[in-house]
Amino acid sequence: MKDYLPIKYEKDVLYLLDQRKLPLEEVFAENKTVEDAHTSIKEMVVRGAPSIGYTAIFGMALWIKKHPDFTLDQYRKACEYLKTSRPTAVNLAFEIDRTINVVSEAMTEGHQAAYEAVVQFGHDQLAESERKNTKMAEYAKEELKQVVDKRSYSLMTHCNTGFLACGSLGTALGVVEYLGQSSMIKNVWVDETRPYMQGTRLTSYELTKLKINHEIVVEGAAATLMSQGKVDAIFVGADRIAANGDTANKIGTFNLAIIAKEFNIPFYVVAPLSSFDPAIKSGKDIEIELRDENEILSFRGERIAPKTAKAFNPSFDITQNRFITGIICEKGILKGSFEEQIKELF
Amino acid sequence: MKDYLPIKYEKDVLYLLDQRKLPLEEVFAENKTVEDAHTSIKEMVVRGAPSIGYTAIFGMALWIKKHPDFTLDQYRKACEYLKTSRPTAVNLAFEIDRTINVVSEAMTEGHQAAYEAVVQFGHDQLAESERKNTKMAEYAKEELKQVVDKRSYSLMTHCNTGFLACGSLGTALGVVEYLGQSSMIKNVWVDETRPYMQGTRLTSYELTKLKINHEIVVEGAAATLMSQGKVDAIFVGADRIAANGDTANKIGTFNLAIIAKEFNIPFYVVAPLSSFDPAIKSGKDIEIELRDENEILSFRGERIAPKTAKAFNPSFDITQNRFITGIICEKGILKGSFEEQIKELF
Repeated sequence: MKDYLPIKYEKDVLYLLDQRKLPLEEVFAENKTVEDAHTSIKEMVVRGAPSIGYTAIFGMALWIKKHPDFTLDQYRKACEYLKTSRPTAVNLAFEIDRTINVVSEAMTEGHQAAYEAVVQFGHDQLAESERKNTKMAEYAKEELKQVVDKRSYSLMTHCNTGFLACGSLGTALGVVEYLGQSSMIKNVWVDETRPYMQGTRLTSYELTKLKINHEIVVEGAAATLMSQGKVDAIFVGADRIAANGDTANKIGTFNLAIIAKEFNIPFYVVAPLSSFDPAIKSGKDIEIELRDENEILSFRGERIAPKTAKAFNPSFDITQNRFITGIICEKGILKGSFEEQIKELF
Repeated sequence: MKDYLPIKYEKDVLYLLDQRKLPLEEVFAENKTVEDAHTSIKEMVVRGAPSIGYTAIFGMALWIKKHPDFTLDQYRKACEYLKTSRPTAVNLAFEIDRTINVVSEAMTEGHQAAYEAVVQFGHDQLAESERKNTKMAEYAKEELKQVVDKRSYSLMTHCNTGFLACGSLGTALGVVEYLGQSSMIKNVWVDETRPYMQGTRLTSYELTKLKINHEIVVEGAAATLMSQGKVDAIFVGADRIAANGDTANKIGTFNLAIIAKEFNIPFYVVAPLSSFDPAIKSGKDIEIELRDENEILSFRGERIAPKTAKAFNPSFDITQNRFITGIICEKGILKGSFEEQIKELF
């Protein structure tokens, strides 16, 4: 068992590693009520779609614990309440809704059974994700060995896609962790990931924990590193993948993909099937969230830019499919015509 | 006369706009001795190779003022002292050495004549730079009108290459200022320019002063903006240009050039002949300064990264010549085979 898991449910308490305090402080927030879980999601103690999902499941278990005589209607209302912790998170609502079936089935054997079933469901989801992500990492390892024949690799990644975001093994950073277990990582170039600094704060934290050699770089260094042969491959995660393979991910991802193609460096998206949205035809149909310009104009509340300056702060970008070498999911690796392969998968 | 010039020499005092305090405070540092000028250069009150050069010239004038009975040998020693304010700045040493001829000629008419000659030399250099940069801006305007036929343009720039760095009209940002005078700027995308934030702090400050519409973006947004047709052209400065046109400039420049080429967006380097170094065969022969990793790991003295994390912090990158649409200098615009044209120029 890893000693650094960010989400633990033990003896009716949900422990969440407070990601706002990383990397300099490692503090676990104790969540004993659904209100605690609500606050943890809302105030970003926990982040990353999968981790938010697990928090929500265990949060609903905490609600049941405090309401031993609940009805299914009351449970549904509590679900709606917890969804308000982050109204735009699709995955959060999805996971919460799934617990309703679990509860309605288990309730026939009593309220305690329902509680235990939801707790078990949370643990099952965590384990299931770890299985899937391990599978993706295995595919990535095979692919990498075929494409670049080396004993150990210099990889590059963007944003944070590791155990903090995923509960256990991550997606793109899960590949790095998995390769690290076989001493196959020479170095990881960690993009600092402006403006929120997920690379500097979170990815570097994870790689430090995993004892994997890495160096943080500004995003401006990408072309230098790639043109000098210092990057063997790039692995990134995905927020959403369209039917044609166009991929929404943290702003800055598309830059990397274009530069990688110029220097013939393989560029992989690592994401489970749940990140695919075959109803979306192409990246053009994905709406990009514009975030508060103060994330760019200030740093930790301190203004950097002139008082009247404005900023344009899209949260994600769309990497066009032609710049992606492969998309790795739990069913294997998609290469070539993504459109046909994604159609076959769904 | 512009009311925002960052370098003024009036009544035996050198006034320098303290660039460390920008953009939130506009404070002029009074320099009354060569030691003051030394401190201003060393502590980055003033930055940008041309501005440092003017500061050095006026700094030597201040030395003469305080040493009315100096010998040429003493003057030479004072020159060496001022060069230690930034030992690696080639331009600084060059400008200081040029004052020795000025002084030795003028000294025949007395010490006061030498003082006045050096002050005049400083003003001449500032005026000469403005003339050259205006010429470059004119060439850029002609080129832009031919390549992209629009009434007003959305341009992108990187780092700071305006009046703060150049004393009066800048190079790449000088083009923007010049076009702005004819209301030909729709918008400027200002790259924040990590890690030192010259875009957010200085370029946005200048454009605010010039009342030119602009928005600050993280460097990760480049591919998004360019792929969506939101950038008509890119103008950047140069630290040094090799005989084949390869260009050293602030880290992140090469990223932009690659992405621009992918989307057929013209990418221009704007730099005077003094930035060319025909003795350097190609970019491979330019040594890149590695700066303190704490510029990336911390922000204003506050640690962001894990305690043991490392960073790789090259100050510049080399944009390979094949990604450059044109190099604009005071003699015109170089396009096509840079190598031949640069050979002809020197």
